[in-house]
Amino acid sequence: MTGTTLDDYTDRYARRVRGMTASEIRALFAVASRPEVVSLAGGAPYIAALPLDAVGEMLGRLGSEHGVTTLQYGIGQGTLELRERICEVMALSGIDASCGASPEDVVVTVGGQQALDLVARLFLDPGDVVLAEGPTYVGALGVFQAAQAQVVHVPMDEQGLIPEALEAAIADLARAGRRVKFLYTIPTYQNPTGVTLSEERRERVLDICERAGLLVVEDDPYGQLGFEEEAPAPLRARRRDGVFYLSTFSKTFAPGLRVGWILAPHAVRDKLVIASEAQILCPSGYAQAAVATYLGTMPWREQLKVYREIYRERRDAMLGALADLMPAGTTWTTPGGGLFVWATLPDGLDAKAMMPRAIAARVAYVPGTGFYADGTGVGNMRLNFSFPPPERIREGVRRLAGVMGQEIAMRKVFGAVGGSGPRRRQGASDAPGPDLA
Amino acid sequence: MTGTTLDDYTDRYARRVRGMTASEIRALFAVASRPEVVSLAGGAPYIAALPLDAVGEMLGRLGSEHGVTTLQYGIGQGTLELRERICEVMALSGIDASCGASPEDVVVTVGGQQALDLVARLFLDPGDVVLAEGPTYVGALGVFQAAQAQVVHVPMDEQGLIPEALEAAIADLARAGRRVKFLYTIPTYQNPTGVTLSEERRERVLDICERAGLLVVEDDPYGQLGFEEEAPAPLRARRRDGVFYLSTFSKTFAPGLRVGWILAPHAVRDKLVIASEAQILCPSGYAQAAVATYLGTMPWREQLKVYREIYRERRDAMLGALADLMPAGTTWTTPGGGLFVWATLPDGLDAKAMMPRAIAARVAYVPGTGFYADGTGVGNMRLNFSFPPPERIREGVRRLAGVMGQEIAMRKVFGAVGGSGPRRRQGASDAPGPDLA
Repeated sequence: MTGTTLDDYTDRYARRVRGMTASEIRALFAVASRPEVVSLAGGAPYIAALPLDAVGEMLGRLGSEHGVTTLQYGIGQGTLELRERICEVMALSGIDASCGASPEDVVVTVGGQQALDLVARLFLDPGDVVLAEGPTYVGALGVFQAAQAQVVHVPMDEQGLIPEALEAAIADLARAGRRVKFLYTIPTYQNPTGVTLSEERRERVLDICERAGLLVVEDDPYGQLGFEEEAPAPLRARRRDGVFYLSTFSKTFAPGLRVGWILAPHAVRDKLVIASEAQILCPSGYAQAAVATYLGTMPWREQLKVYREIYRERRDAMLGALADLMPAGTTWTTPGGGLFVWATLPDGLDAKAMMPRAIAARVAYVPGTGFYADGTGVGNMRLNFSFPPPERIREGVRRLAGVMGQEIAMRKVFGAVGGSGPRRRQGASDAPGPDLA
Repeated sequence: MTGTTLDDYTDRYARRVRGMTASEIRALFAVASRPEVVSLAGGAPYIAALPLDAVGEMLGRLGSEHGVTTLQYGIGQGTLELRERICEVMALSGIDASCGASPEDVVVTVGGQQALDLVARLFLDPGDVVLAEGPTYVGALGVFQAAQAQVVHVPMDEQGLIPEALEAAIADLARAGRRVKFLYTIPTYQNPTGVTLSEERRERVLDICERAGLLVVEDDPYGQLGFEEEAPAPLRARRRDGVFYLSTFSKTFAPGLRVGWILAPHAVRDKLVIASEAQILCPSGYAQAAVATYLGTMPWREQLKVYREIYRERRDAMLGALADLMPAGTTWTTPGGGLFVWATLPDGLDAKAMMPRAIAARVAYVPGTGFYADGTGVGNMRLNFSFPPPERIREGVRRLAGVMGQEIAMRKVFGAVGGSGPRRRQGASDAPGPDLA
């Protein structure tokens, strides 16, 4: 059995999952994580804002006093205790018993990623179409590609997904005889744009999907991280049927515990559990106890406010630095919450081609092509503001603006330089690796 | 979107994964976990034997002193620290640098189950054949069925997998034009039989697979839980290429942390990492730190001895009780390690049909059909001895013997009773749910 034979078996799979090799991904993140580099590339929460002494004490007791349970096997669906706490968290966003939310229909997952993967496993057959915002979460693209489904992007504007474009896409695909399985959407403080689907559009999007008999997979990791007013209620709070609601504690508590969940339509709850059991047997009893105890005994609502305040300050630092420093022709979104700003470069600049020079200037970001399945996004980049402190954000934007200024100057003198030629469509193989968010 | 439509979408999937519904599975385990029932059905380690105070203290420090790292996102492959410790654990079984084992080629997984699922995702296409011992781990059957692969069982005897039967199966499948992807084997203290592949047969099985160009997936959760002498070296210790080695800390430390691993051929290591990232993004940083710190600072080799001693005593209790109490015609294996005894009932008894009466008599086990993909195993049951203390084991066997005695008496008087008729082939839909092991 040679390496060549193994490659032969598995290349098909690797191509299906990502265009980029894992070693390229590792190389990018290894570089971005060097201390001298200001990384605006990640999607990590600012864990240092947690009361780590108290959290540590709680974690210790879960081992010493409750280890016989927490360190043992559990059930595939997740503990009832945690599922009840999850319902309290969802109730804060308006998803409560009045719209049929119940611990019975919650399935605990290994972060939001497994939630997505389970939905894909349950619903997607090769050749199916998934509708998704353009741009969308890179990790969702990986899941849909692994399922051999095709992602068709629906354009957004500053109010989120454009309902007319959604209708048009559904009609086009119906005419083409394609089987569309669901709309995947991150309606609130979206990754990567930070944009929120407006109140009025939420109803229209739901109506359109209902009329088309289309399921909605609502991914909501950021909904409780709004900076000013409350976000519009989640789609699941508006419809009892037809919406899968996915979320995670990775942004509001701790990604290192890997705890997320699905609130599923009752009819498929059992099937999700069976699929999860085949994949991981059961979620970590210890991690579940950690989250449930955190929610049950520590001031998690106050901690949400702490996160919001920190991220609001950092968003402001980023928006201010962008306004002060970016070359003319650059535009960006103004997120009302979440972790990300989405920037559009002056015409002609290629964010992917510019990466090596940005890294040389000690700043990192994720090029926009990573958030599209179809090579769009050449002139875009995602900038994270949740992890670096304000002064580092400003320094990062300063370095980035410097690199962009040089690119623009070079283009004026020599025309296209170093691959950053006229905006062109790139294949999915140019996509960057999964960001850690 | 109605429940019927959801069912329509997903029934295909559910049928693919398990014949039994999740609610039936939950019902079985809910019953088996009632305190008055002696459960010989599980596969749980005896966590109470861990030094829980010290473990708790360690877990607390990982939060309070290292939370900024342990509670954050990590990389898909798993931390280098843990992968180095895993190599120390494998070295104890003879898998070391001399046979090419390296932290570079270890991929950390969410328990052994995700390790299996990743290998299946990478290699299996619908219609492929997987060779496996008959009987084999029920959770592996679930994974292979989810991948729409067909499991062909290779018979075992008290020396493990029968090499001649393996050769014959490969030849038959080749003649039938079937594509066999790999041999899945648990060579040491197998689940569910407790049987170990003999020293001499290990080389023969490897040679046969090598000649056939067949990969070997070696699942080794129990290899370090031998009761008398050391187990024969794992297959991976004998071959540098062509063997995937899978293991877990679920039996030797704590299943509630969900940490397992794959030692992969170098050529596919990256692809496994990419597949895992699409599935779970990254394994829990906290759980990885817990296992790495346990291995790095606590006497884990001594703890292995503690487990071995407890399980040896319990195995002896079970073998003694079986010899004293079982009706004539019952036979069983004599495991040299691990967690399970495999019993064969007197002719005519049906372990699945007998379950309700056993539960009524307050004893639970897993019927043998669960460990076959083809309905074999009607007259078998798996009995666990790792979790219940010796006196409970004896009481459980006493109750079980009582139920069997009644079945035999009824059969003598009335012929077949309550479905326990003459041994018949049953469809896979009669298989019990996944055991928690």
